[in-house]
Amino acid sequence: MSQRVGLWLIGAQGGVASVVATGLAALQAGATDDIGLVSCLPEFDHLRLLDWNSMVVGGHEIRSTSLPEAARQFQQSSRAFDASLVDQSMSALREMDSRIRPGILANAGPAITALANESIKNDCRTAREKVEQVEADLAEFAKSQELERVVIVNLASTEPPVDAARLPVSWKALDAMLDDPDCPLPSSSLYAIAALSLGHGWVNFTPSLGASCEAITELALLKKVPLAGRDGKTGETLIKSVLAPAFAIRNLRVMSWVGHNIFGNLDGEILDDPANKQSKVASKDRLLAEILGYRPQSHISIEYIASLGDWKTAWDHIHFRGFLGTPMVMQFTWQGCDSILAAPLVLDLFRFVERAGRTGESGVLGWLACFFKAPEGVSENNLTLQFEMLRRWAATRAGG
Amino acid sequence: MSQRVGLWLIGAQGGVASVVATGLAALQAGATDDIGLVSCLPEFDHLRLLDWNSMVVGGHEIRSTSLPEAARQFQQSSRAFDASLVDQSMSALREMDSRIRPGILANAGPAITALANESIKNDCRTAREKVEQVEADLAEFAKSQELERVVIVNLASTEPPVDAARLPVSWKALDAMLDDPDCPLPSSSLYAIAALSLGHGWVNFTPSLGASCEAITELALLKKVPLAGRDGKTGETLIKSVLAPAFAIRNLRVMSWVGHNIFGNLDGEILDDPANKQSKVASKDRLLAEILGYRPQSHISIEYIASLGDWKTAWDHIHFRGFLGTPMVMQFTWQGCDSILAAPLVLDLFRFVERAGRTGESGVLGWLACFFKAPEGVSENNLTLQFEMLRRWAATRAGG
Amino acid sequence: MSQRVGLWLIGAQGGVASVVATGLAALQAGATDDIGLVSCLPEFDHLRLLDWNSMVVGGHEIRSTSLPEAARQFQQSSRAFDASLVDQSMSALREMDSRIRPGILANAGPAITALANESIKNDCRTAREKVEQVEADLAEFAKSQELERVVIVNLASTEPPVDAARLPVSWKALDAMLDDPDCPLPSSSLYAIAALSLGHGWVNFTPSLGASCEAITELALLKKVPLAGRDGKTGETLIKSVLAPAFAIRNLRVMSWVGHNIFGNLDGEILDDPANKQSKVASKDRLLAEILGYRPQSHISIEYIASLGDWKTAWDHIHFRGFLGTPMVMQFTWQGCDSILAAPLVLDLFRFVERAGRTGESGVLGWLACFFKAPEGVSENNLTLQFEMLRRWAATRAGG
Amino acid sequence: MSQRVGLWLIGAQGGVASVVATGLAALQAGATDDIGLVSCLPEFDHLRLLDWNSMVVGGHEIRSTSLPEAARQFQQSSRAFDASLVDQSMSALREMDSRIRPGILANAGPAITALANESIKNDCRTAREKVEQVEADLAEFAKSQELERVVIVNLASTEPPVDAARLPVSWKALDAMLDDPDCPLPSSSLYAIAALSLGHGWVNFTPSLGASCEAITELALLKKVPLAGRDGKTGETLIKSVLAPAFAIRNLRVMSWVGHNIFGNLDGEILDDPANKQSKVASKDRLLAEILGYRPQSHISIEYIASLGDWKTAWDHIHFRGFLGTPMVMQFTWQGCDSILAAPLVLDLFRFVERAGRTGESGVLGWLACFFKAPEGVSENNLTLQFEMLRRWAATRAGG
Repeated sequence: MSQRVGLWLIGAQGGVASVVATGLAALQAGATDDIGLVSCLPEFDHLRLLDWNSMVVGGHEIRSTSLPEAARQFQQSSRAFDASLVDQSMSALREMDSRIRPGILANAGPAITALANESIKNDCRTAREKVEQVEADLAEFAKSQELERVVIVNLASTEPPVDAARLPVSWKALDAMLDDPDCPLPSSSLYAIAALSLGHGWVNFTPSLGASCEAITELALLKKVPLAGRDGKTGETLIKSVLAPAFAIRNLRVMSWVGHNIFGNLDGEILDDPANKQSKVASKDRLLAEILGYRPQSHISIEYIASLGDWKTAWDHIHFRGFLGTPMVMQFTWQGCDSILAAPLVLDLFRFVERAGRTGESGVLGWLACFFKAPEGVSENNLTLQFEMLRRWAATRAGG
Repeated sequence: MSQRVGLWLIGAQGGVASVVATGLAALQAGATDDIGLVSCLPEFDHLRLLDWNSMVVGGHEIRSTSLPEAARQFQQSSRAFDASLVDQSMSALREMDSRIRPGILANAGPAITALANESIKNDCRTAREKVEQVEADLAEFAKSQELERVVIVNLASTEPPVDAARLPVSWKALDAMLDDPDCPLPSSSLYAIAALSLGHGWVNFTPSLGASCEAITELALLKKVPLAGRDGKTGETLIKSVLAPAFAIRNLRVMSWVGHNIFGNLDGEILDDPANKQSKVASKDRLLAEILGYRPQSHISIEYIASLGDWKTAWDHIHFRGFLGTPMVMQFTWQGCDSILAAPLVLDLFRFVERAGRTGESGVLGWLACFFKAPEGVSENNLTLQFEMLRRWAATRAGG
Repeated sequence: MSQRVGLWLIGAQGGVASVVATGLAALQAGATDDIGLVSCLPEFDHLRLLDWNSMVVGGHEIRSTSLPEAARQFQQSSRAFDASLVDQSMSALREMDSRIRPGILANAGPAITALANESIKNDCRTAREKVEQVEADLAEFAKSQELERVVIVNLASTEPPVDAARLPVSWKALDAMLDDPDCPLPSSSLYAIAALSLGHGWVNFTPSLGASCEAITELALLKKVPLAGRDGKTGETLIKSVLAPAFAIRNLRVMSWVGHNIFGNLDGEILDDPANKQSKVASKDRLLAEILGYRPQSHISIEYIASLGDWKTAWDHIHFRGFLGTPMVMQFTWQGCDSILAAPLVLDLFRFVERAGRTGESGVLGWLACFFKAPEGVSENNLTLQFEMLRRWAATRAGG
Repeated sequence: MSQRVGLWLIGAQGGVASVVATGLAALQAGATDDIGLVSCLPEFDHLRLLDWNSMVVGGHEIRSTSLPEAARQFQQSSRAFDASLVDQSMSALREMDSRIRPGILANAGPAITALANESIKNDCRTAREKVEQVEADLAEFAKSQELERVVIVNLASTEPPVDAARLPVSWKALDAMLDDPDCPLPSSSLYAIAALSLGHGWVNFTPSLGASCEAITELALLKKVPLAGRDGKTGETLIKSVLAPAFAIRNLRVMSWVGHNIFGNLDGEILDDPANKQSKVASKDRLLAEILGYRPQSHISIEYIASLGDWKTAWDHIHFRGFLGTPMVMQFTWQGCDSILAAPLVLDLFRFVERAGRTGESGVLGWLACFFKAPEGVSENNLTLQFEMLRRWAATRAGG
């Protein structure tokens, strides 16, 4: 296949991006197998999704670092895989790194702003001008790399919640707001607007709400572009989305569900800011009531524990009543390397959204719900039933 | 509703039976709610399943004890519910107790045989004669209680595995074997044969294999009677049947799955005998390979720890690989009161099988798979998809 | 033994007090054994500590409830022991209840104040007057019950921290402050002052800091009275005080120690207020650095989860480095019934402090360190070495 | 310090030995710090124990492998430390490897025998001749390396239990037995006899019982040589030896203590043989009754789970009663890299035993109890009190 398609990452030198890049290089070189890649399951064989060698990676980043450095540091601190894998990928990583451009910032809150380069921090341009810069970067990427399509995936740090009441519901009104010097839209809105305006697919892998509003969905429909989100489901919430149905199916009454999460990567540092944490907790908490049909007492904590690095450890304690009111307990612990869990899903989402865009699907892709903590466009949260949606979508699509 | 239907329990004074009896008395008196009862979920409202007051309980037991005593002892040692619940149920329990008859024994292995009364232990009658005794007891129960139908549920201790190679595949040949003084059929076969011969539904809630053979299925079809089994899915395996799909759906590679179970009830004492344990472990172990599509290293232990009584505690350790081969770990612990989890499922199965029998369904009821560790008639082990089978069955049935 | 000694509880109708009362009644009646009672270990046999039948219980309480009611409710919600134990103790509980007097409040923060009766809440008397009321109640108790001695044990809810900088260091200056209408002393200071002034022993079983200041220690020495504290070591911290030494002894480097505590009793409700929680967390957190000799990253949370009631559940995650810098993990969960763990220690402390007072020991009793999370008078936090202190103290005392 | 002292390892190319070798090379090169080394605690500074550069390693091995290969494989499969550490140690490892000699085998059971080279497996010499071979190897090592002393540490796989009734109690009689063609002594006895006969210190880091008999202790006293053992306390048992005292000190009644261990190294493969496992389980199980003063129901399992490699994972479930008979639960999980935990203790034991030998201590060194699961010469199992023994020993020794 001689076509080339671009994967543009927002947060292109972060932990997840560095594993996406290292992993893609390894897949292109045949140096790893397809464990962890949903799109490689036999259910999707006939779709002939984009092959690894057709993919070209670029992105935006607000910090001063480099992809090879991020990959090296990730490997050393996580020990997730062997150092030789980074060594082998080094030239590919350098090439991808050369396609990374300085990102933009808007209403991202102090925790994220503190990470950014001075010039980005002090950028006083209007929202419109920032959108135009992103559009220019994307256009240059597509042109220079001779790409047929691009899909943008947001991997940036979680923003504080947006006050939706301040946002208009029509694209026209939102568009007008871009010239307002006090435009309240956060970075994630601006990236999404740029992507969709150019007709590129958009995936929100983060809990940030900037692209989850009616006006932006309208833009996607106007431009006939697919979008998908929100917040990649990688660990504790993945497990919740299979466990909670078991209690519902058995008519066991969950009295309380407590989840404590500890980890020490950059994401964790940002979430140590209560404003940013609020977006994340809201995203993790909604599914219980939706699956159970009632709201048990729930408590979710996310704490930054430096020594854990990317190894997100969760303890969940589920207190429930059975027959005759008997109280019982289930507990689980999850020790997962967060970027290792997230990165293949980014590649999967890229492949599915790329195919959807290529074959003319647009608007919110609800059949991608199984990938997200807070799936947009559907209310189904049971992982198995979400996967059935994906499987059925695939079953009705011809190959290629 | 003036109809009366009988629930006949094999192992009628054991832990599960004592909770079935106490719970049914509480439901009949309106003294408890429907937590833990699957058949009370809204999905089944329109079926108008048998109400609690139409149910009459009887059964067989090989030991010398009593239902009131078993219920009292269960409450005191488990502290699952308040003592007042047993007090209130006392007269109902005594009445049910008066309908319990001495059971039979055949090829049940030394651990079970050791529990039985002397007269049952030393009973040298042929298999045919034992079947006839069971039939006579069931007929007397139906007649004296003026029952429209009876469903038999096997709750007896787990038997050692049966060597299926020694059993004929046709009912005719199996029937002939009943006169053989060396007939290898275990108790559970004889009970099932008696139940089905009289046209009663049969549910095997245990791992015993005595009723899981072609010849007995043929008998059910001949008699146009439903049967369902095998081995109630109450705790660790229930959780496995939702967790394993999460690994499959994410294409995560399970390297090993270790499950250690400890508990101290009579069931646990019997399973301390390696022969009996073999049936149980086999039943618990099969679903992993069926869900994952490959066989990870697995280890299941079941140990008798007296102090735990009915509180079955399990620790599962799942070692899996993610993207780029990264090893990760999930662990869970389950602290469930086993009879409290099992008893409502017995009532559910009774209600579903009763309705199936009433409306002319016969043979193996595969749509009851969600209740069983080793469901007969289907290969689906994902709890959510099993429940979808039940839900769809219900959706296509009219009320009443 | 015909002597009678009084145990006066501050918080006399709370969870711990209700188990102290129920348990003492059971011990007096010979209806329970000595499990959980440290003072009943063979190491202390020769001391001939006060026997159960010489003990008379009274106390102060700021809420409107009753001891029989509190005991009944505790039994029903916790299912810790059989209901019959409360039934048998009922007349003893009613008698103890008749000796409970309305308590006082001062600078206790909004969470505690909200619990109190209106008349206590609105009590505008000076600190001096409140101390005098407590003294009068104690004197009346001693006289009416013909007591040879009294020991006061503080079991009241945790107060917000006291700003020690506002307190004078000499008893004379503190005494003068009692007339100040803006006297900053919290309730726990006033109770301690009353107790010590009358020459009674004082035990602080809570994290409240009101009695932990130089001036009050000076008062105890002046009056030749023993005092002991602070914060009963019952669960997670008990385990920490044996586990942390293992890491120190093996020269393993603890990088982080995370402890999450969930429970749902009244204590938990009060600790849901951040001001009150601060005292508790400080008390739980200090021992790690003292045992290890350095300060790993630590995080302690205490959350109110209503369904758990008195069953305090803790999850601790310890991340440590071994040889060649290898990171490893230990985790534990603790499921303990908090009042059941605390109550026998209250009886133990009463017996040890009573003996110390009787035989002329005064000031801070450092050899009681093994009972406390934040032991006063010593810096030893290793439970085994703390117990060695108690054992050696006992070994050097003659009997009786 | 110009002196040179030899550390001779039995099982010199196994997992623990490979970490001892890699770690010693790193310590000699100053490439790692002293985490995990007990002998580097400040309590022992004044003893001026042997420095790393004075140590020379050699040993016996029955398999065909190499130290560099074992170290490489350990690093790759465990990911315990960075690959660069092995790279840096490569020349040191090769040098140590050149000093490894073919070991001997006697009555080691089929699991161990299956590992051995053909020539060792088929070696029909008498026990006497095998002892003489070991002596010759040790003598050659001491001479060629110009060593002042040697300490032998047994790291070989766990042997099946020895029937002590078949062994004489005097050295003279045991010595005579060496010529018997049916001499029942296992390899570990023969190695110990050779070591002690030459006047070298002996440490048994394994559960093997071959050197734990009166006759061999007599030999050590005759030769004025120190010996220490048995079974390095590295993980689950280490934790037990601090946790069990907490229950004893609080007079809490342990009803049952269940410990499940899973791991996948060579040690685990050998322990999959029930005969070998019996020695290990006995060694792990004895301390509970010794600490608690009574014998709760206990269950210990050790299972070989290949995917875990050297990462020994244990789950312990402790069921205990508190005041008024209330049952409660504590659980812990331990995820430790076994060889990483063991190797520094081997270096510590070497240094302590070397110093003891140098300064004329002989016989069983009971003050090393804190290092062992089944300490010889003392009955103390509380880790803190064991460490106090070591600390006091050190405190009474002058430096150097």
